[in-house]
Amino acid sequence: MAGDSLGTLFRVTNYGESHGKGIGVVVEGCPAGLALSEEDIQPYLDKRRPGQSSITTRRDEADSVEILSGTIDGKTTGTPISLFIRNKDQRSKDYSEMAQLFRPSHADYTYHKKYGIRDVAGGGRSSARITAGHVAAGAIARKVLHQALGVDIIGYVKSIQDLELTTEPEDINPELIETNLVRCPNESLADKMVTKIEKARKSGDSLGGIVECQLRGVPAGLGEPVFDKLEADLAKAMLAINASKGFEIGSGFAGTLEQGSTHNDIFFDDDGVVRTRSNNSGGVLGGISNGMPIVFRVAFKPTPTIIREQETVNKEGRDVVFHGRGRHDPCVLPRAVPIVEAMSALVLCDHFLRFRAYKELF
Amino acid sequence: MAGDSLGTLFRVTNYGESHGKGIGVVVEGCPAGLALSEEDIQPYLDKRRPGQSSITTRRDEADSVEILSGTIDGKTTGTPISLFIRNKDQRSKDYSEMAQLFRPSHADYTYHKKYGIRDVAGGGRSSARITAGHVAAGAIARKVLHQALGVDIIGYVKSIQDLELTTEPEDINPELIETNLVRCPNESLADKMVTKIEKARKSGDSLGGIVECQLRGVPAGLGEPVFDKLEADLAKAMLAINASKGFEIGSGFAGTLEQGSTHNDIFFDDDGVVRTRSNNSGGVLGGISNGMPIVFRVAFKPTPTIIREQETVNKEGRDVVFHGRGRHDPCVLPRAVPIVEAMSALVLCDHFLRFRAYKELF
Amino acid sequence: MAGDSLGTLFRVTNYGESHGKGIGVVVEGCPAGLALSEEDIQPYLDKRRPGQSSITTRRDEADSVEILSGTIDGKTTGTPISLFIRNKDQRSKDYSEMAQLFRPSHADYTYHKKYGIRDVAGGGRSSARITAGHVAAGAIARKVLHQALGVDIIGYVKSIQDLELTTEPEDINPELIETNLVRCPNESLADKMVTKIEKARKSGDSLGGIVECQLRGVPAGLGEPVFDKLEADLAKAMLAINASKGFEIGSGFAGTLEQGSTHNDIFFDDDGVVRTRSNNSGGVLGGISNGMPIVFRVAFKPTPTIIREQETVNKEGRDVVFHGRGRHDPCVLPRAVPIVEAMSALVLCDHFLRFRAYKELF
Amino acid sequence: MAGDSLGTLFRVTNYGESHGKGIGVVVEGCPAGLALSEEDIQPYLDKRRPGQSSITTRRDEADSVEILSGTIDGKTTGTPISLFIRNKDQRSKDYSEMAQLFRPSHADYTYHKKYGIRDVAGGGRSSARITAGHVAAGAIARKVLHQALGVDIIGYVKSIQDLELTTEPEDINPELIETNLVRCPNESLADKMVTKIEKARKSGDSLGGIVECQLRGVPAGLGEPVFDKLEADLAKAMLAINASKGFEIGSGFAGTLEQGSTHNDIFFDDDGVVRTRSNNSGGVLGGISNGMPIVFRVAFKPTPTIIREQETVNKEGRDVVFHGRGRHDPCVLPRAVPIVEAMSALVLCDHFLRFRAYKELF
Repeated sequence: MAGDSLGTLFRVTNYGESHGKGIGVVVEGCPAGLALSEEDIQPYLDKRRPGQSSITTRRDEADSVEILSGTIDGKTTGTPISLFIRNKDQRSKDYSEMAQLFRPSHADYTYHKKYGIRDVAGGGRSSARITAGHVAAGAIARKVLHQALGVDIIGYVKSIQDLELTTEPEDINPELIETNLVRCPNESLADKMVTKIEKARKSGDSLGGIVECQLRGVPAGLGEPVFDKLEADLAKAMLAINASKGFEIGSGFAGTLEQGSTHNDIFFDDDGVVRTRSNNSGGVLGGISNGMPIVFRVAFKPTPTIIREQETVNKEGRDVVFHGRGRHDPCVLPRAVPIVEAMSALVLCDHFLRFRAYKELF
Repeated sequence: MAGDSLGTLFRVTNYGESHGKGIGVVVEGCPAGLALSEEDIQPYLDKRRPGQSSITTRRDEADSVEILSGTIDGKTTGTPISLFIRNKDQRSKDYSEMAQLFRPSHADYTYHKKYGIRDVAGGGRSSARITAGHVAAGAIARKVLHQALGVDIIGYVKSIQDLELTTEPEDINPELIETNLVRCPNESLADKMVTKIEKARKSGDSLGGIVECQLRGVPAGLGEPVFDKLEADLAKAMLAINASKGFEIGSGFAGTLEQGSTHNDIFFDDDGVVRTRSNNSGGVLGGISNGMPIVFRVAFKPTPTIIREQETVNKEGRDVVFHGRGRHDPCVLPRAVPIVEAMSALVLCDHFLRFRAYKELF
Repeated sequence: MAGDSLGTLFRVTNYGESHGKGIGVVVEGCPAGLALSEEDIQPYLDKRRPGQSSITTRRDEADSVEILSGTIDGKTTGTPISLFIRNKDQRSKDYSEMAQLFRPSHADYTYHKKYGIRDVAGGGRSSARITAGHVAAGAIARKVLHQALGVDIIGYVKSIQDLELTTEPEDINPELIETNLVRCPNESLADKMVTKIEKARKSGDSLGGIVECQLRGVPAGLGEPVFDKLEADLAKAMLAINASKGFEIGSGFAGTLEQGSTHNDIFFDDDGVVRTRSNNSGGVLGGISNGMPIVFRVAFKPTPTIIREQETVNKEGRDVVFHGRGRHDPCVLPRAVPIVEAMSALVLCDHFLRFRAYKELF
Repeated sequence: MAGDSLGTLFRVTNYGESHGKGIGVVVEGCPAGLALSEEDIQPYLDKRRPGQSSITTRRDEADSVEILSGTIDGKTTGTPISLFIRNKDQRSKDYSEMAQLFRPSHADYTYHKKYGIRDVAGGGRSSARITAGHVAAGAIARKVLHQALGVDIIGYVKSIQDLELTTEPEDINPELIETNLVRCPNESLADKMVTKIEKARKSGDSLGGIVECQLRGVPAGLGEPVFDKLEADLAKAMLAINASKGFEIGSGFAGTLEQGSTHNDIFFDDDGVVRTRSNNSGGVLGGISNGMPIVFRVAFKPTPTIIREQETVNKEGRDVVFHGRGRHDPCVLPRAVPIVEAMSALVLCDHFLRFRAYKELF
């Protein structure tokens, strides 16, 4: 398969570049009859939008979404839904210097090696701007999941560098997430995070961190082992997000420090519902949801764009010095939250439809 | 797509159960003309084989592979290669108790909820025994990659619980890996790990840990953004392995503690070859290999099978007590090494063929 | 995707060669809980089996199927079902002459050009023997369709060379099909066909013809436009059968001789059920089943194996003379009937599951 | 997979409706470095455009294509190419009557049954207008094939009802195709066809016919048996075109009237090139191109839209009378030619890339 599509039954195909005409996404497989308009999608794009606060890039984009197909009288028809987000900021700057060299830890070099040609402006196709398409498509998936299953998707910043939220997943209050610029559901910690990010921005540097995400209300039975396990498809989706470097579900890497006797999640009868006392499994067992909240984390590296002098090589392979300039996100985490949520919605919605195909036939 | 296949151009389809007739895998898309016999595959299966040492399960399986199709006169014909590993140990025990309840942190419950029917013996399809198919198919992928590109795949145990190898990836000596039962390339640390695992086994408990894997010799240009990024497909493959709970590439989760100015990998001209001074990227930038070693880690939870009394629920949803018995792997890590290697070979081989399809056409 | 798999949710992967160890097929996506044993599959293989009558090849193969995975206690578990048909007749003859040249209208030349290596015995992978796997998998699909929807699949020989059955599809009596060697539901015509085929066999020549197939009981709504139309996937499946050269549905090519006013199928209310007075559409409109019987035809060329002297070229590209010898099917039509049925079952079952995924959600 | 995408490595995803905002297509997998602008695509759309002549529908659409992504400085970047064709004629008419009933032999009924909701205007998604996307994407595929392999794709009208071109494929003069409104490479026959179509139009009726298409210059080796045979994928693509009812390759249905001894294509050494004396195979053997021209035919039914009174049923399933009105194509054949060409280009380009992936590795 070509690499710009994701999913089997609920399938998105993404196109567009940072400074081209815009970013688009075609959503195949949305069931018919869902009420859908731009108003269902725009709020999620607004959360991802650049220029939303003092700790994000100052690039100014309204990121207004337009539905180009797939609905009639405000309802989906079961045919492909095409969404388009026009770029306001098209190739305006002078990119001639950047065309000659490869920015450290960006995809300039690898795109050059792979394709032999490169859309330099803003990173072209390798820009995180393409995730606007993910967020737009994810909004549809979320609505399907919410209406059909009552699923809630709750993402938030778990850490910025060494500032880490220690609240247990089940104790997170979703209403606190949007009370601050950094999307951390703990106000005092959020304040410190904002201060830290602003300090990094002023020094031309950047920070990374961790997003945690919970999928609440997922019924047992979703996931298609042995390869299309639910956590496997989530892992793929998360590592496909720009700047992500790691994924873990449930106890994750920390779980390797335990023993089976402490790590196992004990099933019990909770008034007629089978639940587990702990959730080290993170809501999946053997690749299939078990009815507990699905909890996972995604690591994001410090943004590679920094306003510093850096050594690198040019197109001829010779050592040069590059000086970063202009607008940048000193930390992608606040804007990564809606992207992580959207990607998880895409994966879950696809698995929900796959589950429906087979269930209770014989 | 059905969930038991992986890959696009180099594609494996897995079947079989723990205590059924055997485990099989069909490999589509292996290029024609590769010398291939059972001898190319068996050594990798021997590394994954149960009963290989005092720190693995005592289940006795020879795991002999038979090539059922796809070769003629010792060479691949370009048509599907079918591999079969017959089970010696077929449904012999009494599984009537296990059929009535759900073992904690196993897939019993989720398979029951998903399919309404369950092959109880040894976990049926949810058993890690099915990874024998991954390893067999991976052996073919490794041979393709080694002959065509000179790629070396080097996996080893990075940690068992809190015992952690601190050697930098580039300083690992591959020849030390197979010198000990635990597959850790540091003999004194390996000794401690073996002792720790044996102690866990004796107490009926289990341990987890981390496997690190390096893909050396991968040329720049492999990976298909924006969804089929090389690290995304690796993440999926790793989270599809039984008992894995996390994946990270390059600096991974630890990289979130740095700043851009320290985390960025500086390109330099290394005698005509573009390389980076550090490898926080783990060999990928923007989803495409950059020519540096690909380095990633996979977290494995403590084996859920423990020889202890545990609370759980039965098929009627009522609380019961379950007493684990019999053979078990006190720690999956030593046997996970060849599985991680194999899965990475499958992903890389698929991306290598996809790369060939598009390269240098215009 | 690799080319030896077919289907999305109900997916088959085929392997094996004419004179290798056997033919196998892995069926992914069969819903759980279906009663299934070898006895459900064997009767269809018996219909396709070589050596079944005086008008088929005398190659002697029992074509006994073995289920290797995917069932427990006689029921499917929802996991991959692996079927294997061992070859009795393994590379016994001397194929050294055939290895040097390309038989006319066989795939020898194209396999040589594509793969650079060729399994000569019996045509290797290009042999129609591989359709045993299609038939075996199709038997499972038929059972799913019959139990879940009440679908009946009825194939029969429509013509052998110029001997053509003129009965309208709705007037076919399925019980007459198996009353004769050629599988034509008209006894006197069948007699003439058998005579004609025997005459061709005696003269070392071969004949072609047309298979017609009806899918009765298919509900409206199956098919996924705009590319995965039901008739499009049927066409692909039929053209994937060895020796097939054409596909038509409903009025097909003859329909081009009409006008819209005579060709349109008029809808009417048949006691509460919407039906059409004619069925020129062949049961599909816009790629979706309309509830009327699905009727299509497949053209099969005269078998290229003939017991004659023929000119051709050798591996060096030089003109040579080749003399066909040995066993051959003077006409593939009788044995093509169960293959056409099986392939249509595979396509329909896949579309049935896809339909279930989306239906009646909002 | 969702059904609005076609192809594996060269993959198109189509969206849009007859009277919505427009028709779009995203092309994934076009190799980098191909010179490409709207001027490469528009000429093919002009051939498919409505209102182009007296024998096509009078709907007035410019069908101007806009490239939304995937190129920089007039060259492809290897990333998705998004094409959009804005509709001029958006839902202007009163469709309230049509919303209440199902037009005979249209997809109104099946879309209603499948989706429960229907975009009535112009047939919505089931309109042949969506093939504008096929033609636009096909233009890119054609350019890839022409530049990389020198392939020429030559489609033309073979018959209109009983008026049939009898010229052998190898004797067709491509320059005669565009000399007449009907695209038949025989001027006197074309005149008769035009007269016949105009007569049908005046009487409110419609006609069908056959398009023949040749792919010249295809090298041997393309096609992926046993399911993704080249002819199988062509058959699927052709049956996915609106109003098509049949596909045949080489001798097709007529070939069933021959014997093996007359039907077999004899190989010979044509000055160092292996060719066949006849081409009953139509350029494929065993699912793989053999280097001879690929020749196939597609049957199109008479357009179901006729300006007549017809019986049908309404949404409540009751018998009603419907009177067709307005603009219609009295015969789709002239406009079907560029669609058939485009679809064959899409299939061939995908197989070309798949061929490249595997070739000459060992």
